[in-house]
Amino acid sequence: MAKDPVARLRVAPGTKVDLGRHATDATLGWEKEWALEELERAKERLDVLQARLYAEEQRSVLLVLQAMDAAGKDGTIRSILSGLNPAGVHVASFKVPGGRETQHDYLWRVHEQAPAKGHIGVFNRSHYEDVLVVRVKGFAPKAVWSKRYEHIREFEQLLADEGTRIVKCFLHVGKDEQRERLQERVDDPEKRWKFRMGDLDDRALWPKFQRAYEDALERTSTKYAPWYVVPADRNWVRNLAVAKILLGVLEDMDPQLPPPEDGIEGLVVR
Amino acid sequence: MAKDPVARLRVAPGTKVDLGRHATDATLGWEKEWALEELERAKERLDVLQARLYAEEQRSVLLVLQAMDAAGKDGTIRSILSGLNPAGVHVASFKVPGGRETQHDYLWRVHEQAPAKGHIGVFNRSHYEDVLVVRVKGFAPKAVWSKRYEHIREFEQLLADEGTRIVKCFLHVGKDEQRERLQERVDDPEKRWKFRMGDLDDRALWPKFQRAYEDALERTSTKYAPWYVVPADRNWVRNLAVAKILLGVLEDMDPQLPPPEDGIEGLVVR
Repeated sequence: MAKDPVARLRVAPGTKVDLGRHATDATLGWEKEWALEELERAKERLDVLQARLYAEEQRSVLLVLQAMDAAGKDGTIRSILSGLNPAGVHVASFKVPGGRETQHDYLWRVHEQAPAKGHIGVFNRSHYEDVLVVRVKGFAPKAVWSKRYEHIREFEQLLADEGTRIVKCFLHVGKDEQRERLQERVDDPEKRWKFRMGDLDDRALWPKFQRAYEDALERTSTKYAPWYVVPADRNWVRNLAVAKILLGVLEDMDPQLPPPEDGIEGLVVR
Repeated sequence: MAKDPVARLRVAPGTKVDLGRHATDATLGWEKEWALEELERAKERLDVLQARLYAEEQRSVLLVLQAMDAAGKDGTIRSILSGLNPAGVHVASFKVPGGRETQHDYLWRVHEQAPAKGHIGVFNRSHYEDVLVVRVKGFAPKAVWSKRYEHIREFEQLLADEGTRIVKCFLHVGKDEQRERLQERVDDPEKRWKFRMGDLDDRALWPKFQRAYEDALERTSTKYAPWYVVPADRNWVRNLAVAKILLGVLEDMDPQLPPPEDGIEGLVVR
């Protein structure tokens, strides 16, 4: 067993993925109370490293979040990234493409949102929708979507080669847990606006979506852009796991404050 | 005296501005300890209203920050907006224009960064640089920059008419306070990377910059996009003042959760 339980969530490149064998309610050996405190410690450390990344302005981080409805993409972003300096965080939410977006290849709008040097970019949904919903709902024929895994690997390789560290998290929620969460949205007048009738259509296609996720994870988890399967039935597990994954990347990057301009030391400002 | 001291910071449209008569070290009648607590309360309320603005997805807010170096634009953003959901905040930092930016009119790159519906956009520097540094350093002749006040008023009118609430804050720091802050950047190895030799060139042009600011504030403070002169020698005053200005806008907008789709009430999810 790896020392750090989040390392075990990583999909090793080239391995088979069977989501049925990944527990959605795992605790990763954590106790809730400790995990909430640990999340605060992780956020403090993220804050320090983000400030350095921003100052260094040489590299960037991209966190991709994908999940079935109500698995908690929004909640994860809020929980982990609020508290950071908003000047250095850019969240891109990809919705159903429209307008000019549909006049280009599917990576066009994604590339535009790639994080700038010094920034942490977060994709709330992403180019993976183009091998997930597009495949499951038949928005494009297999001859089209089946070529996309390679496009995506090469696109992410480009970003990685040019200074972006990429991590991708699949927030893995159970079908029963999703039912409860959707029901809660229906029942709670404060949350009802979040519910779309279309959510039920996607839910009815659950096995096909799981299969499409398995293929995407298998075919696009790479050394330079690994996927993690994050158990998402418990928000506190999900949040800490994603925070630790992101923190691990930043610790490994070890961003540095840039050197001062020449001749500054000892200067007297008048 | 207005009940809310921040209302007194507003530049009434059509009035003359003499920055020498605006104290940079004013406390606005606040005590520091109270102000720090009040800031936390303001942030909690901002959080609630931002969530509604984001859910409503009909209107947006634009906060423009302008100031001399070291007045605390970055610190203000960090202090007020960290804690909000980063998915709904977009900070645009405008640097010296380059590349394609210079192949277009000066508002082209600014328009692109205007906040999307549901978002709070923050401009760290802005199109105002085009009537400030451009004027003071002579990067364009008077015949060019003098027309820009009207362009800017009309541009902001457009945004306002189309659903963006605009507030603009000039963080007014004193020349002595700036000297101390720049000296601190020079002396502190952790902060030294922030210091640019060019900061001294701008400092040497202090009176010209103040004059350019006075003109910009006078000519572009409008009912739909007012300027506020925020005393910035004390960070705790500056932060609370800007937070209250932003909060006032959001309270006035009173964003609402959108209505749910038809037929959701009483639905049972299976």
